[in-house]
Amino acid sequence: MNFENLFAERMSVMKRSSIREILKLTARPEVISFAGGLPAPELFPTERFAEAAAKVITEQGQQALQYSPTEGMAELRELIAGRLSTPDFHIDPANVLMVTGSQQGLDLICRIFLNDSDKMVVENPTYLGMLMASRPYHPRYLPVETDDDGIVIDTLDDALEARPKMVYTVPNFQNPQGVTLSTERREQLIDRTYNRSLVVIEDNPYGELRYSGSDQPSLISMDAAKRGASGVEGNIIYLGTFSKILAPGLRIGWIVANDAIIDKLVQIKQSADLHSSTLTQYIAYEVSRDGFLESHIGKLREVYRQRRDVMLDALETYFPAEVTWRKPEGGLFLMVTLPEQVDAYDLLQRALEYDVAFVPGGDFHIGKSGWNTFRLNFSNAQPDMIVEGVKRLAALLKEELVTPAAAHK
Amino acid sequence: MNFENLFAERMSVMKRSSIREILKLTARPEVISFAGGLPAPELFPTERFAEAAAKVITEQGQQALQYSPTEGMAELRELIAGRLSTPDFHIDPANVLMVTGSQQGLDLICRIFLNDSDKMVVENPTYLGMLMASRPYHPRYLPVETDDDGIVIDTLDDALEARPKMVYTVPNFQNPQGVTLSTERREQLIDRTYNRSLVVIEDNPYGELRYSGSDQPSLISMDAAKRGASGVEGNIIYLGTFSKILAPGLRIGWIVANDAIIDKLVQIKQSADLHSSTLTQYIAYEVSRDGFLESHIGKLREVYRQRRDVMLDALETYFPAEVTWRKPEGGLFLMVTLPEQVDAYDLLQRALEYDVAFVPGGDFHIGKSGWNTFRLNFSNAQPDMIVEGVKRLAALLKEELVTPAAAHK
Repeated sequence: MNFENLFAERMSVMKRSSIREILKLTARPEVISFAGGLPAPELFPTERFAEAAAKVITEQGQQALQYSPTEGMAELRELIAGRLSTPDFHIDPANVLMVTGSQQGLDLICRIFLNDSDKMVVENPTYLGMLMASRPYHPRYLPVETDDDGIVIDTLDDALEARPKMVYTVPNFQNPQGVTLSTERREQLIDRTYNRSLVVIEDNPYGELRYSGSDQPSLISMDAAKRGASGVEGNIIYLGTFSKILAPGLRIGWIVANDAIIDKLVQIKQSADLHSSTLTQYIAYEVSRDGFLESHIGKLREVYRQRRDVMLDALETYFPAEVTWRKPEGGLFLMVTLPEQVDAYDLLQRALEYDVAFVPGGDFHIGKSGWNTFRLNFSNAQPDMIVEGVKRLAALLKEELVTPAAAHK
Repeated sequence: MNFENLFAERMSVMKRSSIREILKLTARPEVISFAGGLPAPELFPTERFAEAAAKVITEQGQQALQYSPTEGMAELRELIAGRLSTPDFHIDPANVLMVTGSQQGLDLICRIFLNDSDKMVVENPTYLGMLMASRPYHPRYLPVETDDDGIVIDTLDDALEARPKMVYTVPNFQNPQGVTLSTERREQLIDRTYNRSLVVIEDNPYGELRYSGSDQPSLISMDAAKRGASGVEGNIIYLGTFSKILAPGLRIGWIVANDAIIDKLVQIKQSADLHSSTLTQYIAYEVSRDGFLESHIGKLREVYRQRRDVMLDALETYFPAEVTWRKPEGGLFLMVTLPEQVDAYDLLQRALEYDVAFVPGGDFHIGKSGWNTFRLNFSNAQPDMIVEGVKRLAALLKEELVTPAAAHK
């Protein structure tokens, strides 16, 4: 029997993300990988986790191991709401939905908002996980340009003319570029969108990992201010996650949105997985409480700041002059741009021979652009490995810029 | 802004399952609830869990808290494959996909197989979670009748004439009815389906919880035998879960299917939540290993057998003669049929006044049938509470059968 015939038509447009395929190739221990988006595992607070898990199971096992509400664990929703609230902007825990990693958040949002061929605005390049989540609905992507201050508002204005259903942005230390939306641009974005029949997805996995510059207000709080609202009422859907600030293996993220949207998301989440793991929610809460999460994030910032600086220094020192890159103020990534004739996919094949890996930028782009870019992660490797990896890449690049990769094929 | 206008059209057919709404009503401690499908929390092996969690995090924290493959933890897939294999039927771990509870399994299966208005065969009544997962695709349900031996094959033959894409069955101790598909009917089902262009979903959350009678072979193994295959090659998709045999709060289930189907499921799961919790997979493996899971299931069987027997005895003793019920050989549920004039929804409103709860059967049914049925769970309440709850229901029923519920409105 040919099973291909049985699969729903919408599957034809899906393919495994090349990132995960590459991650498999880079599993060899001798490879220095800048490819993944992995937090540094040596920074996981394992002792605190072990104690929290044992305590939660021993003292509340009958709840922590049982089915639980689709909306999430009450105390955890309260903790999340509290951390995101400001003196002028109060988030009610009822506006927080716990999800199985923020990837599930993106998936659920696409499922409730996207009909076939709907238009959505995305930064170009944009986060691959959102492209994966939205592709089944064959959206028409409206790519907007970005510079060092994030979305270029003129290009957003053009895109909005096409009446999109959704605007998707990673405003802080964007994946893959590492750029951050400036305060002025945030104001402009809210000004352009708050009154329209669309939703703005504010995907913020990295916002707390800032190493220089100053914190930016969230779009969801600015939208509320614009409306004169003290709570969540508008058309911004905010996503956060424990993956980068605590541990991705928990698979715990959250969505903050207005009542009507949360209500729809709860319905669809219920049919998607009933609820996220009760146990990891209890453990995440127990680990985070009493200020531990804040002090842990402080520690992450110190270590990751050093790694970012080490990578930026190494790029400056070793990379050829024809190559440029973004200088992120936080997050896990930066993006490198090669001269136009160099194809980053071809380069990756050769980089693996040098035991160093990255993610080519093409997949993050809408259309045929970005083939001469690649993304580097600086959170996972230790500083000496970062320097060594950049040196290997630099040696390869110097060779390639004399004899372009295409010539090796 | 009216957010309703923004939601994708497919949402219009969804509604929150009344089961979860009822569960909220029954949270009052004085209510004896036969409504949920909750395992007995006092049987969770919390000590073993606490040790396993602490051990896994202390010894393998850098892996257990990190991102992990979409397919699932290798050792756990191997354990699942081993437990389901028989001397004649070998399941390769590559044919096992770990999912975020078997509800996610149903959701992913619907996502890859169902196009709008596809036909699917379901037992009538059937599992509500599958109705929730499939409804967004507006399938045409082809209900088949069931009796004490499960699906009535004549009605299956009729349904297959309509060329369905999918046949969905819970062959063991079906939810909501508690009935089990007999060996002969299994053979007939395989005979009718193995050669057709459709998939059979064998949803088996309760199969290991048998309290009397003898174990039935899995459909997936029978299908392989029919094909002369020693492994998973055919069109059966098998689902299992730790929810009933270990702990639902883990949110760990599994799908067993042929290579082509697993490959598609991995793609869609990746965009749905990247992967299921690494941590709960590690913990589930550590708890289950070295034969613990088998001895734990043995203990569950003893306790649940007693509860089933207590409930059946109490029904026999206290329920009016006009009321009938199924006698399940395992699982968590049985179904009660009232005289036709009694509406189980109306009855539930009054039952809550008596501090006892159940789930009306209407929602499990296709079409307008089953309004005079309700489902009782016997795994969650302790024996004395089971007797007390049945007594309360019996008192109410005796009253209702004199003055039907509708008259109270």
